[in-house]
Amino acid sequence: MPELRIALAQVDTCVGDLDANSATVVEWTRRAAEAGADLVAFPEMTLTGYPIEDLALRGSFRRAAWDAAADVATRLAQDGLGNLTVVFGTVGTSGTGRAHVGAAHELPTNRAVVVRDGAVVTSYDKHHLPNYGVFDEFRIFEPGTDPCVVDVGGRRVGLLVCEDIWQDGPTAQVADAGADLLLVINGSPFEEGKEHQRTELAARRAAQVGAPLAYVNMVGGQDDLVFDGGSFVASPDGEILATAPRFDEHLLLWTLPEDDAPLLRTEVTAELDPDELVYRACVAGLAGYVRKNGFRSVALGLSGGIDSALVAVMAADAIGGENVVGVSMPSRYSSGHSKDDAADLAERIGATYRVQPIGPVVESYEAALGLEGVAAENIQARVRGNILMALSNTDGHLVLATGNKTELAVGYSTVYGDAVGGYAPIKDVDKSRVWALARWRNNAALDRGEIPPIPESSITKPPSAELRPGQVDQDSLPPYDLLDEVLDAYVEHAEGRADLLARGFDPAVVDKVLSLVDRAEWKRRQYPLGPKVTALAFGRDRRLPVTSRWREA
Amino acid sequence: MPELRIALAQVDTCVGDLDANSATVVEWTRRAAEAGADLVAFPEMTLTGYPIEDLALRGSFRRAAWDAAADVATRLAQDGLGNLTVVFGTVGTSGTGRAHVGAAHELPTNRAVVVRDGAVVTSYDKHHLPNYGVFDEFRIFEPGTDPCVVDVGGRRVGLLVCEDIWQDGPTAQVADAGADLLLVINGSPFEEGKEHQRTELAARRAAQVGAPLAYVNMVGGQDDLVFDGGSFVASPDGEILATAPRFDEHLLLWTLPEDDAPLLRTEVTAELDPDELVYRACVAGLAGYVRKNGFRSVALGLSGGIDSALVAVMAADAIGGENVVGVSMPSRYSSGHSKDDAADLAERIGATYRVQPIGPVVESYEAALGLEGVAAENIQARVRGNILMALSNTDGHLVLATGNKTELAVGYSTVYGDAVGGYAPIKDVDKSRVWALARWRNNAALDRGEIPPIPESSITKPPSAELRPGQVDQDSLPPYDLLDEVLDAYVEHAEGRADLLARGFDPAVVDKVLSLVDRAEWKRRQYPLGPKVTALAFGRDRRLPVTSRWREA
Repeated sequence: MPELRIALAQVDTCVGDLDANSATVVEWTRRAAEAGADLVAFPEMTLTGYPIEDLALRGSFRRAAWDAAADVATRLAQDGLGNLTVVFGTVGTSGTGRAHVGAAHELPTNRAVVVRDGAVVTSYDKHHLPNYGVFDEFRIFEPGTDPCVVDVGGRRVGLLVCEDIWQDGPTAQVADAGADLLLVINGSPFEEGKEHQRTELAARRAAQVGAPLAYVNMVGGQDDLVFDGGSFVASPDGEILATAPRFDEHLLLWTLPEDDAPLLRTEVTAELDPDELVYRACVAGLAGYVRKNGFRSVALGLSGGIDSALVAVMAADAIGGENVVGVSMPSRYSSGHSKDDAADLAERIGATYRVQPIGPVVESYEAALGLEGVAAENIQARVRGNILMALSNTDGHLVLATGNKTELAVGYSTVYGDAVGGYAPIKDVDKSRVWALARWRNNAALDRGEIPPIPESSITKPPSAELRPGQVDQDSLPPYDLLDEVLDAYVEHAEGRADLLARGFDPAVVDKVLSLVDRAEWKRRQYPLGPKVTALAFGRDRRLPVTSRWREA
Repeated sequence: MPELRIALAQVDTCVGDLDANSATVVEWTRRAAEAGADLVAFPEMTLTGYPIEDLALRGSFRRAAWDAAADVATRLAQDGLGNLTVVFGTVGTSGTGRAHVGAAHELPTNRAVVVRDGAVVTSYDKHHLPNYGVFDEFRIFEPGTDPCVVDVGGRRVGLLVCEDIWQDGPTAQVADAGADLLLVINGSPFEEGKEHQRTELAARRAAQVGAPLAYVNMVGGQDDLVFDGGSFVASPDGEILATAPRFDEHLLLWTLPEDDAPLLRTEVTAELDPDELVYRACVAGLAGYVRKNGFRSVALGLSGGIDSALVAVMAADAIGGENVVGVSMPSRYSSGHSKDDAADLAERIGATYRVQPIGPVVESYEAALGLEGVAAENIQARVRGNILMALSNTDGHLVLATGNKTELAVGYSTVYGDAVGGYAPIKDVDKSRVWALARWRNNAALDRGEIPPIPESSITKPPSAELRPGQVDQDSLPPYDLLDEVLDAYVEHAEGRADLLARGFDPAVVDKVLSLVDRAEWKRRQYPLGPKVTALAFGRDRRLPVTSRWREA
């Protein structure tokens, strides 16, 4: 049996942009051809982007996507690339739909198509439709049932889509049919620690088939998901034979050797530090949102605190500091060091820096309304939100919300105030991790001989919202290290009050935190999108009623 | 065979409030006993409230709900009600879970329990888990597979839950087992026109079993859903034998006659006018949100326009005019008649009326930022939003957003401005329908000899946002009757551009409307909750990516 040269095209495509996504498939197929590949594989739903959500239910979109797939086949042949076998994902249409009352008769499928010699030669509809966590695929797709093993240059290639290897069944079908290679195309979003699950699972599936497994994953940000790439080839005996980098587009080449020659280990990239992974996921999510939504610049409030500093540096890393507008909006309660730290940060990252004191506007509200307490605190945050939105209306910036996951959990933010914006880069990063990422980023700069972007005092000073004299966060909240531990157990691991007490947490702290979390659901519903980086993010990953009287206590 | 006296308890329970919901089951069982019932049936997931969403994934909640079910059985027996057979819904736990990697081994079910003589005598797990539209049940529940036919006083009662009659299979199981009555417990949310689907389907299922079907549905608002009750009994030959009112709690009594005696037609309520149904659905949604979230009052901006007038009247109908705070926030562009109409409305409905001119605050922003164009328009809306939120912070009001579905569709609103609030009562009512509901409500008042609550000029004048001199909505938008037709086709029926042109719409209008709709997704994501009243509401019913370059043109 001849050798088979494989290219895994780890690309970033945009939901709905059929023309650009088609061009990406043609362009990367050309690169694969130049690198001598026989087979090139693209990620799940490359042509449509992923996830398309209820766009799947729009007939005009499905028809256009299907026309685009046929058109890609034609263009590849016209460009002299018809001899390659090209596998990419798109939306298909099932002839028979589920029989629920009122449903359309033709339902969409999550399809992998195989293209060669100017035509779609076969296709495979994903069997297992994930419908947990961030996934809603059972909602929109009809499952496939048939396996797909295709001959490519005399070798048998079994084809699966993403969740199909996370469940039993589809791999067994390929094993029964017999295959020289198991090819899996994926849209697997980043979450911390998931990469080891992927490679261990892939090795197990390779052993099941008795053939190597090639895993191609997409890269890039799409709303609240970040796809981290990290495509790889795993051998049946559990060895990782080749890996692509994380978060960057890449063409990973690997050769299935002839006959029973030994499997070769080629390019294997080093693992990244956990903080670097999370940091880069946030940057990728932000960069994708900015670019795909047609923004050229971002604006955010710079308070001198750690959250806004970290978000500003992420933004500079995502789109260049020259496209970042940092706005200092001091009030009568803002400390001198806060203003200095904000200016210092902006200078370090090359951002445009603007100072817009809020005093006169706040006073005009006070004169009109005579505000006290929470109302007086919130109005300051809302004036700042209005200023940022006014700058956005005038200059077209995307406004970034700088809230972290801890704040979001306990509702320690002002809705329509610091919560304004189109994207919230650290909404799934808890406060403890915010500090860790800031330190990691500064150290990374030092390692490269650069100036650390975040002023040290922004990292070391006690956090404060500065909405009243001498206020610090710890006036209202437990210490962040304790708070984040409780939140991790209650939110991410869904532990009950009894479990929390059994871990030794103070009942008063537990009751306070749980109550804050439960009552903040309405604020979270109106919060901007931001990238999921943990196993359980707020938003589509954790769907709770706003109206709920369930209390653990 | 003896006769069987049935009571359908059409009640309103709150998500998560196990204590209060348990008390409701005991109390309404007592009423049923007093009315001579042998069997009393409560809606789907009565004990937990519905829908519980990801609360189902919390073990502490599932255990508490199961304990509550057992406790209800005990209390009923203690109260001398053990001789009744009581059917109610709650969350169950399946012994075997779906086998996806990382899933919990015990998964929740959507369960109907049958209680008698102080114990749970049997239970039924819903087979068909709706996962389309507003429903996410496949996400959180494990399906049941076994039928449940229970003997009650010598009669065989087949038990199903809601979606089980909308799909084939479960009814056939009951028919095969044989039953004298098919009892279906439901959490079926309101949407316009659905009541006829329900009754026609029920009659078909009754014919399939050859026995009458008793359908009990919940009432009340839960976040973006409104349950409209309308419980009924259908005969196998398609006759509706008894009906409960819409939207109100009610105990519907009906007797299954002995042996082959003819089925009796008892209380059958008149159908409501379509405008009344939608109006009452909005009121029920709002009333439920206010009460279940512990608010006592609402605040909203009164512009003198039709949207805020309609919402204010709905609020007065929901919680009493004395608990409504209407705030007129005139600017230099507000017309005299607008202010007069707002004051007139507040007086008619007995609302607290407050005038808070925004001029000085807007000027303070202009002095600080020098605003023009959209920025200058939006700041006015945002100052109004801030004022309402400040009043909420001070006095605890729930702020109502007054945007309608047409505005939401085309993004004709200011995010963080007129879009602020915790609930948006008419977000699923298009502008054409807003006028119709206003006219219906005024006529309903006239029919009762009351003063029509909405000033006639609020209904008849050309709509205007009054954010610049002489502005009217039709400067920026097609006429509302045309706009609403295009939106209905594009949004609710997911028609493509070609379909729209084939209907004869002007291509320029179509392209403009489609572009506005597609670009407003990010605003809709941050909009408050509001009640679904149409077949396709924005929000959980229509889930589209924010980042999408799909354009029909």
